[in-house]
Order: sequence, then C-alpha cells, then structure tokens
Amino acid sequence: MIVWVTGANGFIGRHLVHELAGAGHAVHGVGHGALDAAESRRLGLQSWINGEIDAANLNALAAAHGLPAQIFHLAGGSSVGISIERPFEDFSRTVASTARLLEWLRGSAPNCAVIAASSAAVYGADHVGPIAESAIATPMSPYGKHKLMMEQLCGSYAQSFGIRCTIVRLFSVYGPNLRKQLLWDICSRLAAKEQVLTLGGTGNEIRDWTDVRDVARLLASVATPSSQAAFRVINGGSGRGTSVSDIAAGLIRQWGGNTVVRHSGVSRPGDPLSLLADDAVLRQIGFDWRIPLDRGLADYVAWFKGQAS
Amino acid sequence: MIVWVTGANGFIGRHLVHELAGAGHAVHGVGHGALDAAESRRLGLQSWINGEIDAANLNALAAAHGLPAQIFHLAGGSSVGISIERPFEDFSRTVASTARLLEWLRGSAPNCAVIAASSAAVYGADHVGPIAESAIATPMSPYGKHKLMMEQLCGSYAQSFGIRCTIVRLFSVYGPNLRKQLLWDICSRLAAKEQVLTLGGTGNEIRDWTDVRDVARLLASVATPSSQAAFRVINGGSGRGTSVSDIAAGLIRQWGGNTVVRHSGVSRPGDPLSLLADDAVLRQIGFDWRIPLDRGLADYVAWFKGQAS
Repeated sequence: MIVWVTGANGFIGRHLVHELAGAGHAVHGVGHGALDAAESRRLGLQSWINGEIDAANLNALAAAHGLPAQIFHLAGGSSVGISIERPFEDFSRTVASTARLLEWLRGSAPNCAVIAASSAAVYGADHVGPIAESAIATPMSPYGKHKLMMEQLCGSYAQSFGIRCTIVRLFSVYGPNLRKQLLWDICSRLAAKEQVLTLGGTGNEIRDWTDVRDVARLLASVATPSSQAAFRVINGGSGRGTSVSDIAAGLIRQWGGNTVVRHSGVSRPGDPLSLLADDAVLRQIGFDWRIPLDRGLADYVAWFKGQAS
Repeated sequence: MIVWVTGANGFIGRHLVHELAGAGHAVHGVGHGALDAAESRRLGLQSWINGEIDAANLNALAAAHGLPAQIFHLAGGSSVGISIERPFEDFSRTVASTARLLEWLRGSAPNCAVIAASSAAVYGADHVGPIAESAIATPMSPYGKHKLMMEQLCGSYAQSFGIRCTIVRLFSVYGPNLRKQLLWDICSRLAAKEQVLTLGGTGNEIRDWTDVRDVARLLASVATPSSQAAFRVINGGSGRGTSVSDIAAGLIRQWGGNTVVRHSGVSRPGDPLSLLADDAVLRQIGFDWRIPLDRGLADYVAWFKGQAS
C-alpha cells in the first residue's frame, strides 16, 4: 500500500516510517529536513521531499509515485514554548499546512484516509482524572489551540466533503531520539553529574507517558478504521498516570547513582496538574500497549548513553 | 483617532467606513477592490490598499499614516455556498488573514484594539429560541467553522499576548448595497414581474434581521469597551425573530402589487430553522437598534428600485 507521512523526519515521524516500512508499505514523506537519499532509505522512506506541505509538493509526490491510500499527518508545531514565542509560525505549521493538505486531498485524492496527530494539549488544564475524547476542549497555549483548530478543519472536510479523518490525541510521548522535554533534560543533567536536580513544579503533576514505538504502532493500527465514520477522535494515551517525581526517580534508578531530586514548587502558568487519557476507545479497538514504563525508561537511558558516547 | 478597516470595500465595510468617518476618525482601509482615490475619498477612506491582509501591506499603511488605535477586521469569506465550493479560499480569507493580522499586531501594534466580525453561523442549526453567546458552537458549513476558528485565534492572541479583541457575531444583516441573499433575490424577481415567487424552505425559518446601518453603528460603538477584558464575544443581533415568509410579505408590501409567495418545503441541508440572538449583552451595553424592520425593508426597496433605474 502507498502511504505518505508528513513530518516524517520528526521524532514520532521517524518511528512511524520505520513501523510502516516494516509492515511492507511503500512509504513516502514530505516535510522539513535535508535528508539525502541514503538516509531516507535507511529510515524506511522510498522518497522524501524536503519542503512545505503544499499542492506543488503533493502533486510532485503523486506524479512520481502514485496516489496514497493513507496519509499520516504529523507535520506541525511541536513545542508549547515556541508556540508562545512565535505563534504565527506555530499556526502556519499546524493549521495552514493542514488546510493545504485537506484541500489537496479534496481535489486530488478524496479516497485517501487521513490520520492526524493531535495532542492532549487541546484539553487544557482544568481536567481531573481520566479525560474522555468528549471532554470540553479548553486549550491554554497557542500550540493547543492550533491543534484544536487542526482537528476542526479535519472535521469540517470530513463533514462537508467526506474526507475520512482519524485524529489521535497524543499524550506524553517519549522514547529514543527525543532530544527535548523532561526526560532529555534530566538525562542531560545526570550526564553532567549534577548531584541535586531541581525541577520545576511540585513533582505531583500527572502525565500519561507512552513510548514512541508503541505510539507508532498505534498510529499505524488506527489507519484502517473498523467503522465507516468519516471522522473520529481517539485518545492516544495509555490510561495510566505517573507523576513527574516518579518519572525522575525511575530515570535515576535506570541511570545509576543516588542523585537527589527537588522540586521548586513553582509551576509554569497554564501547566496542567493532570493530563491522563480515558482509554476506553482504545481498549474497545483492542490496542495493546506493549512497552511498560520501566522498560521504556531503561531503553531511553540506554539510548541516551549510547548517543552521547 | 486613526482606525483601520479590513474588507472596507465589502457590504458592511462600506457602511462602517461611512459611520467612522462621520464620527471624525481618520479611516484607512485594506482589502480587495480596485478603488481609485476619488472613490476611496467618497466612501470616507483617507487611504486604501488593494491587497491581502499581510505584514507588507500593514507595514506600508503604518509607515504612511501611523499606527491605528483600532482595527475593524471585516475581511473574510462571505458566503456559505462559496465556502462549500471553495473551502480553502474561505479558510484563507477568514482564518489565515486573521492569523497574519494578529501576528502583525503582536509585533507592531500590541495596544491596538481589534473588533472582528464573526457570524451567527458559528452556532449551527441545533438551537431553539434566543441563542446566548455562551451557547455551544456547532457550525455546519466551512464558512461557520472558519469563522469559529477566527474567533479562537483572536481568543488565543488575547489570552497569550494581551491583544484586545471584541468579536461581534452578526446575524442576518441586510440593507442598501446588499446584492445577494434573500432580499436581493426577492426584489430581483419582483423586478422581473414574476407573479408567483417560489422560495426554498418552509417559510417558517426564523432569522434575526438587522439593518446594515445599525450594524455599522454597533461595530463602531463596541470598539471602546467599558470593561478591561482582553477578549469578549457579543451577539450582534436584535433579539427579534422574523420568519422568511413575513420578510417576503413585508418586501412585497413595500414593493407594491399582489405577488403570491409559495415555499417549496425543501430546505437546504444544514440550514438552521432558527437563528435568533439572545441580546442580553447588547442591552447591558445599552445599544439601541434604531431602524425597525418596516423602515429597513422600505429603504431596501427604495434603494433597489433606485439602483436599478
């Protein structure tokens, strides 16, 4: 099957391409990143266009390799902080790119299914306990607001033009190759032999941690929906919450040593106390999370030490 | 005061420019339309840029005439039907233009207040009776969905960057110069001496009709908010509902003659049975609608006959 991945050179994109190519699909990618042909092939891509998600590039891919049966749409802003520093850039990457993609599909490949990566950031900071897909979305940051607008655009093209879209709201995705956020920060400071790690917040913040290899398998598995609904939204979370202090302790245990963790008690404005998926829909689909947190953290530490050496 | 109007050459824009210039403001415009200098001045514009709402054009306006204290943002898609035929065009006009405007304001004129024209189409088709601003927004068409996204972008820039935005959700605006929609259609057919007018729908559809001259005065009056809230949404409707069959009868009465109106009974998919504003917020502000429907319809018929002759 011909499948395309936008943002294929990103953290999740690379793992997804690996998963899809491993399943025997012909995978083509478009997005930012100066990958040469050898590197593209190594990742599992049959071809790669380094550029915008726009009609010219999508036409070029189609002309060279045929129309896709599925598009995994991972291109978009990827940082709450950068979305506050440069909101228009985040808008362009997340919303405008999706509008161009959907419009191209409407005209050129209306039977292609879209699987779009959204974020738990659409839920905002006001939820307690597991959050169902039907919960009110009150995103705090431009990043979260733009992701919600991306979902709405998909919903609009699904409702008005029958484009089939599956939205997967991803939670706290971590794993090999993630070079930012909490785990990267902690490992970097462990590598620098800090004896006392002071982290922001209280340490009691709950997140739903998922290993990127499981997430890649999840995205691939929802591409062929069992139902005929043109539009659906799925929580891509495990339903298991772990506090930041437990994550830090787990990482340090895998790392070795007896580094002490302290928390500043100062939270970033708008940082949710809890972002935990209600996983009822995923359980109904029958998806199985395979990489428990302990193993995921061990793999992350092993990758970190390996890439740093 | 320096004020700018985007989409100043549109139906509502022209009336708004007239209102603002009459109040003594220095009014500048940007949007589509090949207005020459004489025509611009006649409309009340001190200057006009025929082009996109983008940083280059906004910079040019600011360099030539100084920064605005208020921007009335009326540029955007203006037709449900066209939004279904060409959804990306509607997205570009409504959402992408707003993103560019807000980003420019953030960098270049953060103290400028924005007054943005939205639409009752954001409410969708499921409401009965007066609709409050807090009602759930379930827009049906790309037009309504994009208007909602425009509102969300304004809310995002208000919340994250303190840009002051007032959203006015307009209902069924009619009046001199409106050359489309129900009133135009009926008058055109009366002018063609059709003896029996067959209209779509049941005739019982309720709309909240407002004369564009009142709407222009409303937009100008909410530009200086009494409260300090960075973001607010206001229904720009009168709170009075009138059925399509009563509008048709009123128009025919003003026109003269005894044309008969029939209704096909066939409604357009997604066409709401009722779009009526809860006007509590406007009443609290103290806004007074001055042009009753009878006078508005009489003026419309007089304008129609005058422009046609």
